[in-house]
Amino acid sequence: MDLGTALGLLLGLGFITIGILSNHGDLRWFLDLDAIVVVLGGTFAATLVNYPLKNISNIFKVLGQAFTQEEIGHQEVIEELVIKAELARKMGITALETDLDKVSDNFLRDGLELAINEKDPLRLRNYLELELSNMDRRHSLGQEIFLYMGAYAPAFGMLGTVLGLIIMMTHFSASESGGAIGVEFDVAKKFAELLGGMGLALITTFYGVLLSNLVFLPLAGKLKRKSEEELMVKDIIVEGIIGIHAKDHPIILRERLMTFVPQSKRKQKD
Amino acid sequence: MDLGTALGLLLGLGFITIGILSNHGDLRWFLDLDAIVVVLGGTFAATLVNYPLKNISNIFKVLGQAFTQEEIGHQEVIEELVIKAELARKMGITALETDLDKVSDNFLRDGLELAINEKDPLRLRNYLELELSNMDRRHSLGQEIFLYMGAYAPAFGMLGTVLGLIIMMTHFSASESGGAIGVEFDVAKKFAELLGGMGLALITTFYGVLLSNLVFLPLAGKLKRKSEEELMVKDIIVEGIIGIHAKDHPIILRERLMTFVPQSKRKQKD
Amino acid sequence: MDLGTALGLLLGLGFITIGILSNHGDLRWFLDLDAIVVVLGGTFAATLVNYPLKNISNIFKVLGQAFTQEEIGHQEVIEELVIKAELARKMGITALETDLDKVSDNFLRDGLELAINEKDPLRLRNYLELELSNMDRRHSLGQEIFLYMGAYAPAFGMLGTVLGLIIMMTHFSASESGGAIGVEFDVAKKFAELLGGMGLALITTFYGVLLSNLVFLPLAGKLKRKSEEELMVKDIIVEGIIGIHAKDHPIILRERLMTFVPQSKRKQKD
Amino acid sequence: MDLGTALGLLLGLGFITIGILSNHGDLRWFLDLDAIVVVLGGTFAATLVNYPLKNISNIFKVLGQAFTQEEIGHQEVIEELVIKAELARKMGITALETDLDKVSDNFLRDGLELAINEKDPLRLRNYLELELSNMDRRHSLGQEIFLYMGAYAPAFGMLGTVLGLIIMMTHFSASESGGAIGVEFDVAKKFAELLGGMGLALITTFYGVLLSNLVFLPLAGKLKRKSEEELMVKDIIVEGIIGIHAKDHPIILRERLMTFVPQSKRKQKD
Amino acid sequence: MDLGTALGLLLGLGFITIGILSNHGDLRWFLDLDAIVVVLGGTFAATLVNYPLKNISNIFKVLGQAFTQEEIGHQEVIEELVIKAELARKMGITALETDLDKVSDNFLRDGLELAINEKDPLRLRNYLELELSNMDRRHSLGQEIFLYMGAYAPAFGMLGTVLGLIIMMTHFSASESGGAIGVEFDVAKKFAELLGGMGLALITTFYGVLLSNLVFLPLAGKLKRKSEEELMVKDIIVEGIIGIHAKDHPIILRERLMTFVPQSKRKQKD
Repeated sequence: MDLGTALGLLLGLGFITIGILSNHGDLRWFLDLDAIVVVLGGTFAATLVNYPLKNISNIFKVLGQAFTQEEIGHQEVIEELVIKAELARKMGITALETDLDKVSDNFLRDGLELAINEKDPLRLRNYLELELSNMDRRHSLGQEIFLYMGAYAPAFGMLGTVLGLIIMMTHFSASESGGAIGVEFDVAKKFAELLGGMGLALITTFYGVLLSNLVFLPLAGKLKRKSEEELMVKDIIVEGIIGIHAKDHPIILRERLMTFVPQSKRKQKD
Repeated sequence: MDLGTALGLLLGLGFITIGILSNHGDLRWFLDLDAIVVVLGGTFAATLVNYPLKNISNIFKVLGQAFTQEEIGHQEVIEELVIKAELARKMGITALETDLDKVSDNFLRDGLELAINEKDPLRLRNYLELELSNMDRRHSLGQEIFLYMGAYAPAFGMLGTVLGLIIMMTHFSASESGGAIGVEFDVAKKFAELLGGMGLALITTFYGVLLSNLVFLPLAGKLKRKSEEELMVKDIIVEGIIGIHAKDHPIILRERLMTFVPQSKRKQKD
Repeated sequence: MDLGTALGLLLGLGFITIGILSNHGDLRWFLDLDAIVVVLGGTFAATLVNYPLKNISNIFKVLGQAFTQEEIGHQEVIEELVIKAELARKMGITALETDLDKVSDNFLRDGLELAINEKDPLRLRNYLELELSNMDRRHSLGQEIFLYMGAYAPAFGMLGTVLGLIIMMTHFSASESGGAIGVEFDVAKKFAELLGGMGLALITTFYGVLLSNLVFLPLAGKLKRKSEEELMVKDIIVEGIIGIHAKDHPIILRERLMTFVPQSKRKQKD
Repeated sequence: MDLGTALGLLLGLGFITIGILSNHGDLRWFLDLDAIVVVLGGTFAATLVNYPLKNISNIFKVLGQAFTQEEIGHQEVIEELVIKAELARKMGITALETDLDKVSDNFLRDGLELAINEKDPLRLRNYLELELSNMDRRHSLGQEIFLYMGAYAPAFGMLGTVLGLIIMMTHFSASESGGAIGVEFDVAKKFAELLGGMGLALITTFYGVLLSNLVFLPLAGKLKRKSEEELMVKDIIVEGIIGIHAKDHPIILRERLMTFVPQSKRKQKD
Repeated sequence: MDLGTALGLLLGLGFITIGILSNHGDLRWFLDLDAIVVVLGGTFAATLVNYPLKNISNIFKVLGQAFTQEEIGHQEVIEELVIKAELARKMGITALETDLDKVSDNFLRDGLELAINEKDPLRLRNYLELELSNMDRRHSLGQEIFLYMGAYAPAFGMLGTVLGLIIMMTHFSASESGGAIGVEFDVAKKFAELLGGMGLALITTFYGVLLSNLVFLPLAGKLKRKSEEELMVKDIIVEGIIGIHAKDHPIILRERLMTFVPQSKRKQKD
């Protein structure tokens, strides 16, 4: 499990809570159902216009990925590929077919299967890279939805504030110019009403900025990072399969694949 | 029909309505014809300067696409291509000519016709990719207009607010410094007038933000998604036609085309 | 003539005028020479720093293009190219030389002349594409100037407002703390003065936003569209000349060139 | 000398001065050393963090380029290249060596020298393009520094305003709640103080916006234009040297190089 | 050590301090632990959601690079490469193996080792460029984190201000409308309270803007510059190793590598 995502969200809410309490604020003032309806509802509605339903229904599955962690060890993948390369060098590439079921990674298994059947190295590379670019295209869609929500949320937050200000001002104006004015005009009370209305109006801005900067944009960032890491492992696998297919010497293959691993980590290994 | 677009627009208006009513606002305050003239009129005028008339007259046709849904099944297209590939492999590529009229997709039909007549695979690919890139160019124009409108609308909303504030302030200033000042200056009434004017001025900002973030930008996003999906199907068709022309084995062709389909969906099929 | 540009500008001013009058504003309040000096003058000065004089002196010529319309029919260009291709196929490419003077488009004429003299198809293509990319480079400069003006105008509008607020506030502060305070302090008059000053200060913001969003940015957009369309016609011409040079069959050439024309328009022709 | 840069800066300051005076402002109000320290000092400090010292020390040299003008005539360069091409065609490329010292442009001289020594046309092109791309990389660094300063200046302007507002508000609040309150509270005086403080606070915003939009961003733009023009001349030289090396016919070479010159200017020549 | 980074940070804080003191502010007003918790805590929490823990734990190591300076002399690297090239030309490439341990730069040593073992120049180049592009990918991640923090900090600053305003306004409103109103309403005291609350609320905006524009964004810029310089040295090394492998003449090799060095510096050398 990726504790960072959950921890970050909790910490963020915690820091905001500290900020509210230390300013002698009341947490209940910040729980406003109507404000949530305008900001979250508006953001959801705009997303519904922006994306086909099937992409949106995918959102929770994509969201799950931001909270889980599949520790993908570059070194382990490289070792697995080098072992396959040794086998293929000694016994021919068809020898890989027997252990194919034991390969856990789908992409590696499909790729090896193709490498066994395909003669032409160029077509093998084309196929693998097409698969990668299509995977990238599907991944970036998930991130994109959160980026869009991160852009819509503050807009609807601002919309709610403008809406609240219009109502407050029109109310104030209407009650004054229309109603009978008493002898003792209570300035203080009116002013208090005005400020209270402004405070309420600002709550949607608060939600919009918070949702965008603590939830939507960072989640889009996390998904992007996860996708980049997965694609880097897939890049290693593609280079490895090409090398196995070309019957590269396992030592040279490992050296080439190790360029994908940060130099600092390589040191530790040696 | 793409229910998402209509549903999103309705939901968005619904949530805003809830926000207005729950704040004890009156919906009529938010229907201001003059504000609509400034924001929508200004946006339309700027778009008229920005785009040739023929592009703008296309806008409603493009808009229709955001509300309709042509469910394009990747799998069906792939199956159709594989069947054609089998036929071409057994009976020669000219055998495809007989059933050409039954092909519903224009792009596929034209492409197959070309594949039958053209010998050189490179020229076939060039032709198909030129067609695709030109189609992409025409599609992105439609999205672009909505993106521009999404940028102009808040600007004209802000312009209307500034305009309203200038009028209100100049009025206030003129009425005071010019007129005779009575013994009992009615602060409350003046202040109410001021706030009323400000409330009115903010309405154009409200329209600008709403139109941009619920209508124009999300519609541009939906059109972009639709175009991307259509182009992906076209990508499959191009790869398929190239494969048929090269007399690829139908099984290998299907495998290659399946890389365009998300792995999760491929699983369900098996 | 491109009526859209002029019509859009007039409509935009019309809608703003309606907005002013319906808010009981006075059009004269919005004609402020000093505000124009700050916004337009500042924008012009920044552009003068930004661009060499010779680019700026070109601005009115470029501006003219946004108001004129050279209806370039894709179909006519294609037909002309197909006729040339037929001639070149039957009589040899040198036969094109006789009618060269009748070709109205400079680019087509120069291209055909080169096609007659140049043997190597690759060098012919290189030359034509170099010409195109240089033309594109020159075009985009004209659009860029308007984009920059569209960015500077609101900045100088805001600058004018800040400047006006500083003056108003310092005046107010100086007159109060420095002068003798009478027995009856006239709050209303002071407040009216304050609001009047603020209203004046906002006028530059009004100009900046209006100039940017109704004039500069849309003009840049229109120039971009015109340039794109011209380049697409040039693309057709390049493909056509290459085809003529390669002695492609006129029917195949027309088919390839037609991919540049939207499918809907192609239908109408058939 | 490039008069445009200096003229633009002077004009810009002039227009702002007119704006101040016509609003009955006092120029001395806008000369505030503390504000300059916060905005210009902060921008300088941020630039110091952002760029290595050696890049910043280069800034004045780069700045000089924005004020000087080296009129580079495309036509003259082309003529010089054509003359070299004629010589190389008649007498062999080594004949160029004798007049090499008379070539004023460093890049052209080094390029010709290489063309004489290098046999392989591909390596010659690689060398020249590597030189060009490295020159481009160094140029864009100079522009980039001004772009960054144009982004930091308004931020520090805003920072100064926020800082001023905090001080003013805390002062006001402290003086009131802490001190003894007299019988006759002088509202007008307090309000005047408040507005005076706000006016002072806004001065840093004024500086930030002015520096960014009249100085930093336009200078970055000018440097970019100068660099683009120089690179275009260098592009012509590269194409010319390649042509001389390939012993192209001088007439064909001139024709190819002329594609870099706008069609309008070419006309005048004929 | 890179004094610029530390100097810039200190200078920036110094200029801000001058700005505070010269405005008769008190530095203690600007030290607000709660504000730090909201802005820095919120930024940290958002970064935690945005990036995997292992990337964030790297942050201090990356930060160190912004403060240290490894003066990499282009000329020295080039001389070293030329010496190696001379040796390889005279004695064969395997002669490089003896002195390999004395090469201090890891990348150069690994590259030379590969050049000795690898026959195929294309595979050698592929390997070296793969290594470079992966190094670039890892570098840009470090810069990216700071760019994100530079975007989150002002957002949380604004969030804190909105939060503070909501609390202040609700407090004010609650205390008025709920409590009994005395005969003599103390306007001045209330107003002082209000302004004090606003001042406090603005402190988070102050922190957000300062952290973003003096710390996070400039640090990201510095890291980007350092990475670019390192990659340029690596580019020189790659070109050099390729040249050594191809047994280029040392003089030609030096000439080619010198294109990476600014022309001004080359002059000094001659």
